[in-house]
Amino acid sequence: MKLSVAGFRFAGISSGIKTSGRPDLALLAADADIPVAAVFTRNRIKGAPVTLSQERAKAGLARAVVVNSGNANSCTGKPGLEDAQRITRGVARGLQADERRVLAASTGIIGVRLPLDNILERVDELCTEARPDGFSDFATAILTSDRGPKVAYAEVGLGRTRIRLLGCAKGAAMVAPNMATTLAFIGTDAAVDGRWMRGVLREEVELTFNDASVDGDTSTNDSLFLFASGRAANKPLDGGPHGRAFRSALRDVLDDLASQIVTNGIGATRTVTIEVAGATDVKTARLVARRIGSSVMVKTALAGANPDWGRILSVVGNTGIDLDADRIDLHIGGVHLVKGGVSAGGDSEARAAAAMAKETFTIRLHLHAGHAEGRHLTCDLTSEYATITAEQRP
Amino acid sequence: MKLSVAGFRFAGISSGIKTSGRPDLALLAADADIPVAAVFTRNRIKGAPVTLSQERAKAGLARAVVVNSGNANSCTGKPGLEDAQRITRGVARGLQADERRVLAASTGIIGVRLPLDNILERVDELCTEARPDGFSDFATAILTSDRGPKVAYAEVGLGRTRIRLLGCAKGAAMVAPNMATTLAFIGTDAAVDGRWMRGVLREEVELTFNDASVDGDTSTNDSLFLFASGRAANKPLDGGPHGRAFRSALRDVLDDLASQIVTNGIGATRTVTIEVAGATDVKTARLVARRIGSSVMVKTALAGANPDWGRILSVVGNTGIDLDADRIDLHIGGVHLVKGGVSAGGDSEARAAAAMAKETFTIRLHLHAGHAEGRHLTCDLTSEYATITAEQRP
Repeated sequence: MKLSVAGFRFAGISSGIKTSGRPDLALLAADADIPVAAVFTRNRIKGAPVTLSQERAKAGLARAVVVNSGNANSCTGKPGLEDAQRITRGVARGLQADERRVLAASTGIIGVRLPLDNILERVDELCTEARPDGFSDFATAILTSDRGPKVAYAEVGLGRTRIRLLGCAKGAAMVAPNMATTLAFIGTDAAVDGRWMRGVLREEVELTFNDASVDGDTSTNDSLFLFASGRAANKPLDGGPHGRAFRSALRDVLDDLASQIVTNGIGATRTVTIEVAGATDVKTARLVARRIGSSVMVKTALAGANPDWGRILSVVGNTGIDLDADRIDLHIGGVHLVKGGVSAGGDSEARAAAAMAKETFTIRLHLHAGHAEGRHLTCDLTSEYATITAEQRP
Repeated sequence: MKLSVAGFRFAGISSGIKTSGRPDLALLAADADIPVAAVFTRNRIKGAPVTLSQERAKAGLARAVVVNSGNANSCTGKPGLEDAQRITRGVARGLQADERRVLAASTGIIGVRLPLDNILERVDELCTEARPDGFSDFATAILTSDRGPKVAYAEVGLGRTRIRLLGCAKGAAMVAPNMATTLAFIGTDAAVDGRWMRGVLREEVELTFNDASVDGDTSTNDSLFLFASGRAANKPLDGGPHGRAFRSALRDVLDDLASQIVTNGIGATRTVTIEVAGATDVKTARLVARRIGSSVMVKTALAGANPDWGRILSVVGNTGIDLDADRIDLHIGGVHLVKGGVSAGGDSEARAAAAMAKETFTIRLHLHAGHAEGRHLTCDLTSEYATITAEQRP
């Protein structure tokens, strides 16, 4: 079954950016200018398409987003920005749309100009090829060193109407908890109030994409877009029970994509959820979870199913938060490893090592300082990661 | 030639902490209570010997420090603190010293009690074996997964008097820029004003040990001690030209030890100095240098001699500092790679890759925002690091 969502057409083709000849140019197009919400990298150095899309998305309406992989068009100066503008101009012509309603996203190597002529030559074909059932071509053409496409889908009933969300993402490295890491695109047929949708997206990204990481480096090009075609013809969502149902389905899609990004992190063999409970406030809980999930020593231990819990406590101590070390409890994979700041003893380490041999498990830290909770999703850091990223130019 | 410094005796023996039977118990002893300066980890979770030594060092005088490797005596609760106290009590008895003048340091696995009886049985032997020429035994017995001892020596003339500094360190992982990372011990025969020496040590550690890292994790047990026996019989140092000469020699020793720690980082094949110039203030310059030197993506690129400079600029953007991306200049190994925020073009990347193939080189970033400079010393992150730390229990 080919996935689709009413009101959108998709395409993915090869334009010669990737020397491998693999697909590298993608288009998501709506039939009209529709509400869009977008979140961008917080990196102070932004790729040209981020600068362009951030400005255009302020209008709250868009017709399409053109994406290329293999080249981030970042640190390319004013010429790079002009390249991005010319590509969106080409797409606008192909779609008979207003250029200001065409957004852009790029991912790949930093600091190299795009092969602009090659791309412009293929833009008409890209627009012509866009079809309602072209989603998997789109999801494939946005990838770089990813192991495969990352796709998420949700349906939810709003009274008698049924709405759909369909999304995809790319991300294998330079993934860190700061804004919509990597690229992600979601289309829904729901009718929405645009301003309401933008607020919802910001909040939901914060607790899904922003609580996940692969290597702790936030890229210059992270962008996440949510388009709403309105084809489901529901009463435009702006809160209430239907708004909550939509928000919940959106969270599922974002969670699913973020989790797939982490699971497909370069060289990753395990996906680990870090839950921090008993913190004084949510910000502290999330900070501690993120710091554990970003520690090199912890992440290499995850690769070895190594229950060396001292590394985790050491990271907690380094966060600088107020801390009563004698009250810390730590469970890994359900095994109680640390009680009141010291080893739980017995065969707890052997049992934890067995639990850590699985592909997914949870590290649960209780600070016993308050009632706030936070979490972070991370992967292990393997020798394969080091080997691949040593050589890799995206 | 065996290194020594007047007024100190050293020993290093095996006490059964390491199952390998390698030396794991060490002693540095003075002939009398002498001025001491010490700096400790800023981790909120501190090993028992840190708690003990931090309290006792406040007096500014010490007779000895007893060190064990293979076990950090950290996260061991009140019983762990009592273990540390009993060991220093045994050493005080052996040296006929005041127990409060005996300091302690431990390094190794976290969360496991020391084999106290084994250690106490060997403490008398440790005190008896301590000799002026025992420094290399001491420097060896403090090691864990280090490739070898790290020793530094300096001499400096103060008028007609010549004073000496002799130091050693251990450190292979959990090395991060926050306080005296790892363990280090320095003895000098200089006569000093104790309060002046403590101020000098704090300042010099900040710009040497605290600007170096292996993996960005600060341990729970970092401790650095500087003892001054006064045997050189110079006029006690408290500033002035002689004070500056001493400080300069101390900085050389600290720099040398910090550099050896980084060079001997687990799996490391390259030692890289990151210099940041043109910052608005020193704090910003050091922060940017540290963040570049702690980035996983940058450190794996160093391992591959990979001139993917976008990773470096991306880290700079992520620091959150005010930044004019269009003014950034970047040199690697003397090769101008980035001019005004964009690629310098030509064959700059190929030449940078050649420069990065060396064991040591410098990354120089110019922000063109002010006149402050900072630096950070780091090593590469190799697949060997990931493989070793996956399995390792220290």
